[in-house]
Amino acid sequence: MTGPIEFLITANDDLARVGCVRTPHGPVATPAFMPVGTRAAVKAMSPDELWNIGYRLVLANAYHLLVRPGPDLVRELGGVGRFMAFPGATLTDSGGFQAMSLAKISSVSEDGLRFRSHLDGAPVTLTPESAIEVQEALGADIMMVLDECTPYPASHDQARKSLELTARWAERGLRTRRGSTQALFGIVQGSTYTDLRRRSALQITSLGFDGFAAGGLSVGEPKDAMLEMAALSASLLPADRPRYLMGVGMPADLLAAVGMGFDMFDCVIPTRNARNGSAFTSAGRVSIKRANYARDAGPLDADCECRPCRTFSRAYLRHLFLSGEILAARALTEHNLFFYARLMREAQAAIASRTFRAYANSMTAALQGGDAGDKDTD
Amino acid sequence: MTGPIEFLITANDDLARVGCVRTPHGPVATPAFMPVGTRAAVKAMSPDELWNIGYRLVLANAYHLLVRPGPDLVRELGGVGRFMAFPGATLTDSGGFQAMSLAKISSVSEDGLRFRSHLDGAPVTLTPESAIEVQEALGADIMMVLDECTPYPASHDQARKSLELTARWAERGLRTRRGSTQALFGIVQGSTYTDLRRRSALQITSLGFDGFAAGGLSVGEPKDAMLEMAALSASLLPADRPRYLMGVGMPADLLAAVGMGFDMFDCVIPTRNARNGSAFTSAGRVSIKRANYARDAGPLDADCECRPCRTFSRAYLRHLFLSGEILAARALTEHNLFFYARLMREAQAAIASRTFRAYANSMTAALQGGDAGDKDTD
Repeated sequence: MTGPIEFLITANDDLARVGCVRTPHGPVATPAFMPVGTRAAVKAMSPDELWNIGYRLVLANAYHLLVRPGPDLVRELGGVGRFMAFPGATLTDSGGFQAMSLAKISSVSEDGLRFRSHLDGAPVTLTPESAIEVQEALGADIMMVLDECTPYPASHDQARKSLELTARWAERGLRTRRGSTQALFGIVQGSTYTDLRRRSALQITSLGFDGFAAGGLSVGEPKDAMLEMAALSASLLPADRPRYLMGVGMPADLLAAVGMGFDMFDCVIPTRNARNGSAFTSAGRVSIKRANYARDAGPLDADCECRPCRTFSRAYLRHLFLSGEILAARALTEHNLFFYARLMREAQAAIASRTFRAYANSMTAALQGGDAGDKDTD
Repeated sequence: MTGPIEFLITANDDLARVGCVRTPHGPVATPAFMPVGTRAAVKAMSPDELWNIGYRLVLANAYHLLVRPGPDLVRELGGVGRFMAFPGATLTDSGGFQAMSLAKISSVSEDGLRFRSHLDGAPVTLTPESAIEVQEALGADIMMVLDECTPYPASHDQARKSLELTARWAERGLRTRRGSTQALFGIVQGSTYTDLRRRSALQITSLGFDGFAAGGLSVGEPKDAMLEMAALSASLLPADRPRYLMGVGMPADLLAAVGMGFDMFDCVIPTRNARNGSAFTSAGRVSIKRANYARDAGPLDADCECRPCRTFSRAYLRHLFLSGEILAARALTEHNLFFYARLMREAQAAIASRTFRAYANSMTAALQGGDAGDKDTD
């Protein structure tokens, strides 16, 4: 590899593409969904289960690992991938998003973010420089630059000021990077303003990042605006670098974004919804607590080959969920992550055979079925 | 098999014995520890993990399954073993112990127990007859007769009246049994009174049970009294039937009881302690939350071949535990159950080679080490 990572595109179908991100911890087939391992663990899952389902890249949150157990400890234990015993590649976010959503932000200044740990109230400063230093200690294969995730709604003026700050932070982050084994991605902001998305993309892609992300989406804006801004952002990002749509999302949204030319995704929906008793299936959503499953001897998803579907009845899963058993969270999480992994594998195959549009349309229609339709209601 | 189960003893070493309980769901090597699957799930574990660790027999609580999801539903779904997708054999208790410890007992009468469900306060009656009917619906390979678990302390007179009731209930339970595929075990009571243990054993063993249990121990009495009464009970039970010491216990107690001639055990200690962060190791107990493990790159137990010990550092497990991650409960539970399974396998091998006493002595000494010694402090 010439850089920390290498990105090869092996097939295109209209804007969608199949590729491979080669990392120091192995190749990652794209389009790829990344399970979220907030505190260096994907909730309810073991690392070998993630691997066996087919995941080769997981995300961990720098903010959470910064406040506990601390980046130096993770470095000492061999970096986040080895710490959590995941045999594949890892990506860390910058910590900025959680600092804004979880912690008490004292101030956002030119310098960076000041906030208090949500654990013990200890004051923490996160600058574009320290965000890189923290992530270099965490040692993931891919790091994200510190950005200001523009809140929604934001006025045009607010959004413009925010993306200018993000651009200056991007330069500072890039200058800070020392090692040659960790890739660094830039992040495009611009809220829901077409001109600002263009402006941010122009700024960020002019810098030497190894990949690019669209940020500031799925933060409360209408679905149509999210999809429109995502499509615009994808079109503005260079074709020869991985494109990462941050924090999205629902299966149908992933298919839409793959169709726009995005390559990487992360979201807590499959894992969080699982713990709330909600399963994604080939016939739509299943809310396992519903009374009509009480005596249902069939699997969660008759069309699924995952271990829980090969093992457990809906009646048993409902009993586990109502009883608060850990195994309910385990089984539904494993199923949902299997569903997402399969969705990405099928999307890859459909792109390679130039049938992606038909695949995405039929799958999106199927996803509308079930208890709750394709809405994130949990 | 001539009855529902068959018990073969293949080796003896002093009072200890190695054997096999042949059940309709496969053979179970003894001495055997049974993980407790309270609500048809061993907390934090999947059934295939239990099987892979080596368990061939798990216990489920009739009381819990009676109040939710109900015995008829479990019967409809194929019985408790199939319901929970465990490929081996199952045992259910009578429900009496939990009715007394968890529910609000309204009355203990000649007829049976009246109590209110701990879930919704609904009134439930459990009689010697209905305890069998419930367990026949649950369909486990081994059922337990309804007994009155004599509380500790009890006066000699109270304990005598209690065991007489237990004896009358035993006859009623035995008369109720209809099928020929489920074994039924009797239970000896007698509190900590030598004469009453003898009297109860004489009564219960005169009835045609497929196996016998010592009950009413580990309910608050001093450790010495528990061991003395257990040893006495074992000596009074027929040698050609499985002997089950209920609710015991700590690893050293299991070895002591194996040395008395007991064959079967159940206890929540390995699973409950795991969720509290306490691991059993070959060098004694490890309380994973201790600060001295914060940067410890070694496994929980350097002498252990379980999956968590082959995968995770103490530092990572401590981080998971402090973070409240489900994976902490999973890993420590899997480790503790592996430790208990290995203890039983080693005991079997030691008995077969007539070195059980030496093995038990050296293991018991080793178990005194670690953070907490061999005490159930959680």
